[in-house]
Amino acid sequence: MTDTTTIADIRITPVAFADPPLLNSVGVHEPYALRSVVEVETSGGVVGLGESYGSSIHVSRLKMAAESLRGLDVQNPYALRQAVARALTDDRTSGGDGMAGMVTASSTLDRVYSPFEVAALDIQGQQYGVPVSTLLGGLARDEVSFTGYLFYKWAGHPGAEPDRWGEALDAAGILAQAETMVEEYGFTALKLKGGVLAPEAEAEAVGALADRFPGMPIRLDPNAVWSVETAVRVGRRLEGKLEYLEDPSPGLDGMADVRQRVPMPLATNMAVVAFDQLPESVRRGSVDVILSDPHFWGGLGQTKLLAGVAQTFGMGLSMHSNSHLGISMAAMLHAAGATPNIDYACDTHWPWKDPEDDVVAGSPFSFDAGAVAVPTSPGLGVSLDRDKLRRLHEQYLASGMTERDDTGYMRRFDPAFDPSLGRW
Amino acid sequence: MTDTTTIADIRITPVAFADPPLLNSVGVHEPYALRSVVEVETSGGVVGLGESYGSSIHVSRLKMAAESLRGLDVQNPYALRQAVARALTDDRTSGGDGMAGMVTASSTLDRVYSPFEVAALDIQGQQYGVPVSTLLGGLARDEVSFTGYLFYKWAGHPGAEPDRWGEALDAAGILAQAETMVEEYGFTALKLKGGVLAPEAEAEAVGALADRFPGMPIRLDPNAVWSVETAVRVGRRLEGKLEYLEDPSPGLDGMADVRQRVPMPLATNMAVVAFDQLPESVRRGSVDVILSDPHFWGGLGQTKLLAGVAQTFGMGLSMHSNSHLGISMAAMLHAAGATPNIDYACDTHWPWKDPEDDVVAGSPFSFDAGAVAVPTSPGLGVSLDRDKLRRLHEQYLASGMTERDDTGYMRRFDPAFDPSLGRW
Repeated sequence: MTDTTTIADIRITPVAFADPPLLNSVGVHEPYALRSVVEVETSGGVVGLGESYGSSIHVSRLKMAAESLRGLDVQNPYALRQAVARALTDDRTSGGDGMAGMVTASSTLDRVYSPFEVAALDIQGQQYGVPVSTLLGGLARDEVSFTGYLFYKWAGHPGAEPDRWGEALDAAGILAQAETMVEEYGFTALKLKGGVLAPEAEAEAVGALADRFPGMPIRLDPNAVWSVETAVRVGRRLEGKLEYLEDPSPGLDGMADVRQRVPMPLATNMAVVAFDQLPESVRRGSVDVILSDPHFWGGLGQTKLLAGVAQTFGMGLSMHSNSHLGISMAAMLHAAGATPNIDYACDTHWPWKDPEDDVVAGSPFSFDAGAVAVPTSPGLGVSLDRDKLRRLHEQYLASGMTERDDTGYMRRFDPAFDPSLGRW
Repeated sequence: MTDTTTIADIRITPVAFADPPLLNSVGVHEPYALRSVVEVETSGGVVGLGESYGSSIHVSRLKMAAESLRGLDVQNPYALRQAVARALTDDRTSGGDGMAGMVTASSTLDRVYSPFEVAALDIQGQQYGVPVSTLLGGLARDEVSFTGYLFYKWAGHPGAEPDRWGEALDAAGILAQAETMVEEYGFTALKLKGGVLAPEAEAEAVGALADRFPGMPIRLDPNAVWSVETAVRVGRRLEGKLEYLEDPSPGLDGMADVRQRVPMPLATNMAVVAFDQLPESVRRGSVDVILSDPHFWGGLGQTKLLAGVAQTFGMGLSMHSNSHLGISMAAMLHAAGATPNIDYACDTHWPWKDPEDDVVAGSPFSFDAGAVAVPTSPGLGVSLDRDKLRRLHEQYLASGMTERDDTGYMRRFDPAFDPSLGRW
């Protein structure tokens, strides 16, 4: 069976899909979100899929890595990772982390390797006739709960019609958005992307949500734009109203300081984004909850490892999301489904995506009470729709975009916009 | 495919195999070593194998666990583990850790679950047509290096003829034993089980080994019978002669104290034997090298997790061994083969076992330059020889043994024998 699992070809296709003007601490989402679609094809003609960031630097690295993978066996992810590591030794580029300028010390190797590992597991699953979740140790749950991910936003992109969600620039706007999200998707947890308005205004929005949805877990994520003093002040004000406060202040020190002085758990996908940051985070007691993410933690196997580390060291675990398509959704579902200690609903940008804009065939995902079933067919359980892929690739070419640049886009409308961390 | 991977039957067979009078800190190996052979059979008739400790308490627990596993799918090790955990809630027995009275805080759940997980992976591998190493992430090496495991020993069991190894009760005896081991197996690393003679005598033996085998990594394992002061004195004397010093003194505190005052790395399979001990061990800086062991760390998946934790927190990794048969050998080979950061040769008692005494068919393992090839056929790559199994089970029944009791056996010849930790 071995030769049919040899990698014969790899195709990497950058794509773009429509994205609403969602506001965050570094600016605003551009009209298109970029992703890359990785297809790994074996000599036996089986295709495995992966999805990753779409910036040109990242896509270049994916292509460097792909060159090194032809001829290898998808059944040995370890060997694939070693090959990617060797391929990247000559890489002298920087950036390309897909996080829009938010400081990240995530591992380039982990980010580049991830979609290939997912594709390799997809192929293995198809080959063995089992879902990827089985290759990750078996399902701990049949479905994965997600948060309703709320954003301050403009009514529409400047110069375009308002989108279906409309404007949300105050507590009332967020409340209306939450009503729609909960009604349409049944979410049982909510997350507000903060770092946009003055901290007190965001606290007011959280308060309004807590009043409107009593007992529902709510999170606030100001993406580390608050000083420690601000974080402590707002954190104390929000006592009893937040499931956790996510990345209130920058760095392991900032987080550790805030953590000692606020009543709720602290979560992060900024202060701890790579394995080499875990020892110092544990030593300093910086965070309570780690937000895993297969895209930057090195794939699904390493997401399971991170889960094991979190459990061993008494940290909670949730899952971070960037704007993503259906391949990533499938990967996240398998990872979260096979991870017993995903203690919190996972994040997803899914509701912000036009259902027509995807690369997977059909409409394989549906939300029931805020949860999505883990696919049960062999592999990831999704397949590529080549027409859709072509359309999203053409959309990518037509967009003229090569990077995610929330700050640059914001500055076209607000030249003085300041994206710095800890500025509030 | 699912129904053919449903567990239809589980057979647990205690067995005994001849064991030489190897001396250690708690006494001496009895004439037979006990193990249990676990056979998991699916509704599709595929049999998966696991091997574990053979004490009656442990075997009783394995049987309790087995009752809970029928009808479950071997493709979901997570669900198997949950079932074992539930089955053990009513267990009120203590002991049965297979470690001959050496203090152990290893997890009963991990010990009991382990052979079932190995058997489930064996079945999965056979079902998918891949070796277990593939299910663990792929081979990082084709063969696994082992240490030549040297023991002080009597010439033979009292009342019996001397065995082929003869007596080793001083440096000369150990040197002769090492010569034979290296000649017959090609070992490129040596380990001396200490805690038997006065510390200075054991240091002298290590010195003799270092002189005779210049450059060869050597370890000494006194099983925590040294006080901190003794460990520091002997450790300093052995500067430059030991790859690592294993469990010189008891407990996380003792190890941390010694570690700050001796020049070589400290390894353990006594102070850190379960995931819940890792945070405190990391916090105190107690050890440099963790000795993994699928039998008490909860199987092969958790051995990989332990490896990831060790790598993340900058600890080295090796592998511990009890007296074992061929099923455990196969499991250890797959685990070590698929673990990139097994930085040290693994331990095995293999040379001390009569080649005729086993339960696996044929002679699947051979040593070349101290290393054994990881099996490449589907599953574990070993199968049961029912005649051999029957013979070793009859040997178990005839032995009258139900526990490993190195101390009790020693006291038959030396009633005043003191097995306490830190006694030297």
